[in-house]
Amino acid sequence: MGFTLGEIAQHIGAEARGDADCVIHGVAPLDRAQAGELSYLTSERYRRYLSGTHASAVILAPQHAPHCTVAALVVDNPELGYARAATLLTTPPVQRGIHPTAWISATAQVHASAWIGPQCVIEAGANIAKGVSIGPGCVIGADSSIGEDSRLLAQVTVCHDSIIGRRALIHPGAVIGSDGFGLASDHGVWVKIPQLGRTRIGDDVEIGANTTIDRGALDDTVIEDGVKLDNQVQVAHNVHIGAHTAIAGCVGIAGSARIGRRCRIGGGVGIAGHLEITDDVTVTGMSLVSKSIRTPGVYSSSVPAEPVAVWNKQLARLRRLETLSERLKALEQNRNNHKAST
Amino acid sequence: MGFTLGEIAQHIGAEARGDADCVIHGVAPLDRAQAGELSYLTSERYRRYLSGTHASAVILAPQHAPHCTVAALVVDNPELGYARAATLLTTPPVQRGIHPTAWISATAQVHASAWIGPQCVIEAGANIAKGVSIGPGCVIGADSSIGEDSRLLAQVTVCHDSIIGRRALIHPGAVIGSDGFGLASDHGVWVKIPQLGRTRIGDDVEIGANTTIDRGALDDTVIEDGVKLDNQVQVAHNVHIGAHTAIAGCVGIAGSARIGRRCRIGGGVGIAGHLEITDDVTVTGMSLVSKSIRTPGVYSSSVPAEPVAVWNKQLARLRRLETLSERLKALEQNRNNHKAST
Amino acid sequence: MGFTLGEIAQHIGAEARGDADCVIHGVAPLDRAQAGELSYLTSERYRRYLSGTHASAVILAPQHAPHCTVAALVVDNPELGYARAATLLTTPPVQRGIHPTAWISATAQVHASAWIGPQCVIEAGANIAKGVSIGPGCVIGADSSIGEDSRLLAQVTVCHDSIIGRRALIHPGAVIGSDGFGLASDHGVWVKIPQLGRTRIGDDVEIGANTTIDRGALDDTVIEDGVKLDNQVQVAHNVHIGAHTAIAGCVGIAGSARIGRRCRIGGGVGIAGHLEITDDVTVTGMSLVSKSIRTPGVYSSSVPAEPVAVWNKQLARLRRLETLSERLKALEQNRNNHKAST
Repeated sequence: MGFTLGEIAQHIGAEARGDADCVIHGVAPLDRAQAGELSYLTSERYRRYLSGTHASAVILAPQHAPHCTVAALVVDNPELGYARAATLLTTPPVQRGIHPTAWISATAQVHASAWIGPQCVIEAGANIAKGVSIGPGCVIGADSSIGEDSRLLAQVTVCHDSIIGRRALIHPGAVIGSDGFGLASDHGVWVKIPQLGRTRIGDDVEIGANTTIDRGALDDTVIEDGVKLDNQVQVAHNVHIGAHTAIAGCVGIAGSARIGRRCRIGGGVGIAGHLEITDDVTVTGMSLVSKSIRTPGVYSSSVPAEPVAVWNKQLARLRRLETLSERLKALEQNRNNHKAST
Repeated sequence: MGFTLGEIAQHIGAEARGDADCVIHGVAPLDRAQAGELSYLTSERYRRYLSGTHASAVILAPQHAPHCTVAALVVDNPELGYARAATLLTTPPVQRGIHPTAWISATAQVHASAWIGPQCVIEAGANIAKGVSIGPGCVIGADSSIGEDSRLLAQVTVCHDSIIGRRALIHPGAVIGSDGFGLASDHGVWVKIPQLGRTRIGDDVEIGANTTIDRGALDDTVIEDGVKLDNQVQVAHNVHIGAHTAIAGCVGIAGSARIGRRCRIGGGVGIAGHLEITDDVTVTGMSLVSKSIRTPGVYSSSVPAEPVAVWNKQLARLRRLETLSERLKALEQNRNNHKAST
Repeated sequence: MGFTLGEIAQHIGAEARGDADCVIHGVAPLDRAQAGELSYLTSERYRRYLSGTHASAVILAPQHAPHCTVAALVVDNPELGYARAATLLTTPPVQRGIHPTAWISATAQVHASAWIGPQCVIEAGANIAKGVSIGPGCVIGADSSIGEDSRLLAQVTVCHDSIIGRRALIHPGAVIGSDGFGLASDHGVWVKIPQLGRTRIGDDVEIGANTTIDRGALDDTVIEDGVKLDNQVQVAHNVHIGAHTAIAGCVGIAGSARIGRRCRIGGGVGIAGHLEITDDVTVTGMSLVSKSIRTPGVYSSSVPAEPVAVWNKQLARLRRLETLSERLKALEQNRNNHKAST
């Protein structure tokens, strides 16, 4: 088990300096790495650990290579190089088969190379593609499809008619394709509007633990390729998230919001419904987006905490702004009267 | 399968215009509907699709009926009419029986017309009423009861002694009756206060995916009839939510808060503990309710995001308000001195 | 079943007044308690119920003892005394054994005194210690360990290599040890950084329903002894939470944040990544901590909701602060010119 430095260099597109035949079997930080392990240097801050490392090799940028006393894998983006090398070195071998405690409908299709873990439920008409791994306790609803090489880790629920692309990674407790929150009012009594659309998820999407993605009301909720959702994100019905957008934990996105490509949404952000956010927009943590954003850039309504006495005074002053404004107006009036009289 | 236009008209209380014997088997939006499908027009915005629709019939308001070139179901509230018609047309037939992989305690009572899905657990003394459907992977705790015709979709946990009313709809991952967050301090070390109350849920309540509702500490947590909770809502111990209140996603409600009837709570709102919100209150998204609200109306502390440079300047100005106030005071003093001297 | 008043007094460190042999079998509030039940008085507010109570005994502070007409357990901190007495009286007897529907890997170790509930999955190499109770539908990942007398209630997921200490109480739907949100950018396309650290949880930790705690990227995520997390809390990778800190519902903590001991974090708070909060810090509900806090105390950026018209005016005034400032400057200039000219 393990890969040679040369193999890793080729896999991550690095220039190898040192013994290309040296075998690497794991990764570790500079200060903890041992022989046979690969480390990395991504920040000037950790350069002091470089000279004393016991790692067999270090992934680093060209400017740090001269200071490296062990073998090196030189790349422009060491973080990216590390991500790829660590994936190569640590991805577990894929199981295949069906665990005896799983229950699979007679009309579901499960590829022979897929793995269905213990206590799973695969309902009628579901389609599990080549190389898929369904971890323990997952439920795959009727007529859903899970694309090639996707991994659902544990206790994931995929509701009926959902479509998950290839190489998805879905963490425990996530719920895909639950009903949207659609209600009509009958003189103050809510009547449910059936949620008849689907959830369609592209390729290479990661979905965090206990994240929920609702199905569409009539049209579909769409998550494009390469989108990354952290834990406890809530995506309402008919939302559309553009490719390669990353959304941090605890974000809530209301119905029919349309988010562009390559956006970065900070933790705890709220996004109102029926609006559009263009490509390449960053929103800082715990902000509220309540109207469309049509220009790329960074947006915020984050309010940093202060000592409570300081903060409460500021709130009180905000409430007294009207008085301040009126006092100012009185002074201006006074000045104008004075001017007029001289 | 399907219903005639006449049957649907009667079910939703509409006036049918056109062939009452035409058979409808599904619903679709105006621009995608085909023969045999029913569509609807709820907003002036979509009226342009009306003339070209291939739907067999359209639910609409009286003022739009003259523009409809196909059969029509005329109602005062087309959204409500659509909700009812779509429910009629799309509700799946109810299964009955017990899946062989479910485990049911010998002392649980399950009505013969109920359905217990694969991998479920029904613990001792639980009571599953007539027409209930318990989806895959649900856990129903000891001595809980699930009322007639309720549907728990998948992976729902109902903790011991919880009471769920009739026609509940509970989405995957929801947890009902978990312990409240009750702690006593022993000189800085927390000691758990046992949570001995129950969760009592009325009729016609909908509970979203991964929503959590804690049991009471000694008295009960109460959700009245017709309450609708979206995904990832957190309801703490001893909260009381009045009938027909709707709460959007990611709302957190702290212990012993009492919320009135017909309230509408926007997404991401926080409601502090031990306060009271009267009937017919609306709170806008991501606001914080930190004291009781005694007058119906709309309440807000939502702060919309702006370009970060603009926002940071506003925050900085808020912090300098004291200086501004003092400068204003100096000017007023100056004016008063001036007046006194003239 | 039950305990004598004398036994309870000894257990909670109270002075018993009245018949020490009286048998108590449950707890109830003052106004609902019956013979054989123990009640408590923690607040002056409820003193009016004391004289009429039917409880067999009441836990109360010395100053209330003279007003008590039934037996009393006198302690300095009645809430703490109640917590301990109620725990004694209401903790269910521990089951032991393995439910026939559970699946346990041949290489997992389960102590003979532990309980593994229905539909559970215990994966390879997992270690379940003495007196542990694993409720229905839980998944314990490979090589994880669950410490003595811990209770996982239902549908809990513990991912591989996680370490849970002794006497943990973990509520339904919680996910421990899911991947952190680690991404490297390849020219706008996200590449996953494998998450290779663990989650290590100390003794006496409580974890709420649907709370998620990510594993570390390379080093571990650490939750120290006695930490209490409410429902729907999100703890990102490499976070460190100090002993006896309590965190209310819906809090999100970003990666590598370090929170001190005995902190109290209010509901819905957001804590940014890579910062440090010292010991004994309180943060009020829905605040955002975006920089390190080095001094103990209370911190806030909570903004209480107001009637929407009032709030919108305040927001508008905040946006006009620049104008206000400029008008003030003009007046000052005017005064200075005036002074100079006189």
